[in-house]
Amino acid sequence: MTLRIIATGGTFDKHYNELNGTLGFSDSHLPAAIARARITIGVQLEQLPLLDSLDMQDSDRARVLASCRAASEKAIVIVHGTDTMKETAAVLGPADLGKTIVLTGAMIPYEIDNSDAFFNLGFACAVAQTLPAGVYVAMNGQIFAWDNVQKNKAAGVFQPL
Amino acid sequence: MTLRIIATGGTFDKHYNELNGTLGFSDSHLPAAIARARITIGVQLEQLPLLDSLDMQDSDRARVLASCRAASEKAIVIVHGTDTMKETAAVLGPADLGKTIVLTGAMIPYEIDNSDAFFNLGFACAVAQTLPAGVYVAMNGQIFAWDNVQKNKAAGVFQPL
Amino acid sequence: MTLRIIATGGTFDKHYNELNGTLGFSDSHLPAAIARARITIGVQLEQLPLLDSLDMQDSDRARVLASCRAASEKAIVIVHGTDTMKETAAVLGPADLGKTIVLTGAMIPYEIDNSDAFFNLGFACAVAQTLPAGVYVAMNGQIFAWDNVQKNKAAGVFQPL
Amino acid sequence: MTLRIIATGGTFDKHYNELNGTLGFSDSHLPAAIARARITIGVQLEQLPLLDSLDMQDSDRARVLASCRAASEKAIVIVHGTDTMKETAAVLGPADLGKTIVLTGAMIPYEIDNSDAFFNLGFACAVAQTLPAGVYVAMNGQIFAWDNVQKNKAAGVFQPL
Repeated sequence: MTLRIIATGGTFDKHYNELNGTLGFSDSHLPAAIARARITIGVQLEQLPLLDSLDMQDSDRARVLASCRAASEKAIVIVHGTDTMKETAAVLGPADLGKTIVLTGAMIPYEIDNSDAFFNLGFACAVAQTLPAGVYVAMNGQIFAWDNVQKNKAAGVFQPL
Repeated sequence: MTLRIIATGGTFDKHYNELNGTLGFSDSHLPAAIARARITIGVQLEQLPLLDSLDMQDSDRARVLASCRAASEKAIVIVHGTDTMKETAAVLGPADLGKTIVLTGAMIPYEIDNSDAFFNLGFACAVAQTLPAGVYVAMNGQIFAWDNVQKNKAAGVFQPL
Repeated sequence: MTLRIIATGGTFDKHYNELNGTLGFSDSHLPAAIARARITIGVQLEQLPLLDSLDMQDSDRARVLASCRAASEKAIVIVHGTDTMKETAAVLGPADLGKTIVLTGAMIPYEIDNSDAFFNLGFACAVAQTLPAGVYVAMNGQIFAWDNVQKNKAAGVFQPL
Repeated sequence: MTLRIIATGGTFDKHYNELNGTLGFSDSHLPAAIARARITIGVQLEQLPLLDSLDMQDSDRARVLASCRAASEKAIVIVHGTDTMKETAAVLGPADLGKTIVLTGAMIPYEIDNSDAFFNLGFACAVAQTLPAGVYVAMNGQIFAWDNVQKNKAAGVFQPL
């Protein structure tokens, strides 16, 4: 079993820039998170441009799809912003790639107290290894089919349609 | 889907006692960890006596088995010390309870920097929801059958026999 | 010796709002920080409106001055945003209140990894107890007179004029 | 102003060894803590053998004294275990070195949640820069003369005799 983890940015990877006081992107936290998780199966980390998912364009989602298609691994975790996770899932789902593709992210950045990021990463890494081929969203300790999920922005949680 | 999480102690739940400078047990970190994970499925947390797994006796493992047997949930995560995780798994496996039971733990306590605990909890919560009935050990981002796992104490990782 | 700590906001107290993904203000981190520091002298925490110091108006600085003037303690720490710390110091300095008033803050919020906030708080609490009456800025492990300090925004550090 | 920081171990620098599950010593946390504090004055870090202060012998205290004596800096912070901090202070005090020497430490290791270590380091760095030559213990946000301090082990706090 080898796992591909694709970083695309999102809240999970937001970083506080102390010079201008804003949250943006710098290096991904995923190399540190993967080491901290002490994962002993093979992991291929692929870093795409790190974006706020509200800034993602069709071309950005096409690039994620291309990465999934090109991957030799059958198990893929995509770390993604929560706001348009379902839109990217809706690009990946119909492509029917014959792989288990799991989108996850975080409500609070990895580097901020009380973050859910590390739990979600662990959760998604298991889903990618255990479910049949398909596209899933894994958030809030729940697994959603790509075509039956939405973010309830007022409550800050994912739920079925 | 409802999940039962059974706390039994182990490194995951070790707590630094500042009055005597030792690592022992106080309140479990699991209520805080579950809240932080923002889990939206039902979770039943059951706290058994918190023990270093090297101190676990047959009667302690029998109590874990009794809890699993009594549980109404079909998905169970057991947070357990790593040193005798396989021994407890070997008690649960042959009991053939018709539930998906996943043992996990941590190499570093939840409250200490660089801990794998929160990742492992997320990983195990997914395994419990996705795999068929059986008993599994989930550590190092890997899933092991209860009768094909061992802790490599020199390397600090789990591996097949 | 009793110490007054006045919270005015700033980066130190910024809080990540997971519903809208922005850094703003909620409850101050100071009650938790003071408890964590295990301070055994008397501490009076006074919370003023929590503001980004770039949003501070003359009336806000007048309120800080009024709090310092009204305080019965001779040792005062003000937790303040870094961007206009010197402007508030320049209001307090000439008032000549006969108290040791120390402004501090943080380059990274208390709740974010790698924050300097807790160190700075400790540093300022000592300066307030040890220096003669006057107004000081305490950042970067250095003590500056209120009329000989500036923030080098490009480098993210405080330095003399 | 240049500051010397002398690491001698103690709770501050305890490190969790994940292979044997014990707290011991590995690399000091002080290089990371000093960087995180963004100190802009000169800092000389001197690492002596890292010891639990209960294991300190007369020869260990003599080595601390020798380091203080040899130091070219007038401001010295010693990071030390809390249990025999006053014993080392009692060796340094009568030596009358003409330097401001401040002993500090932590009730909870730097790497464990809710640690006071980083606050104490900041506090001590200010005391070393502001008080006249002498030997002090700085804990719990308080400054104690070397010959009027004791650790109340039941309460876990420092207090005068």
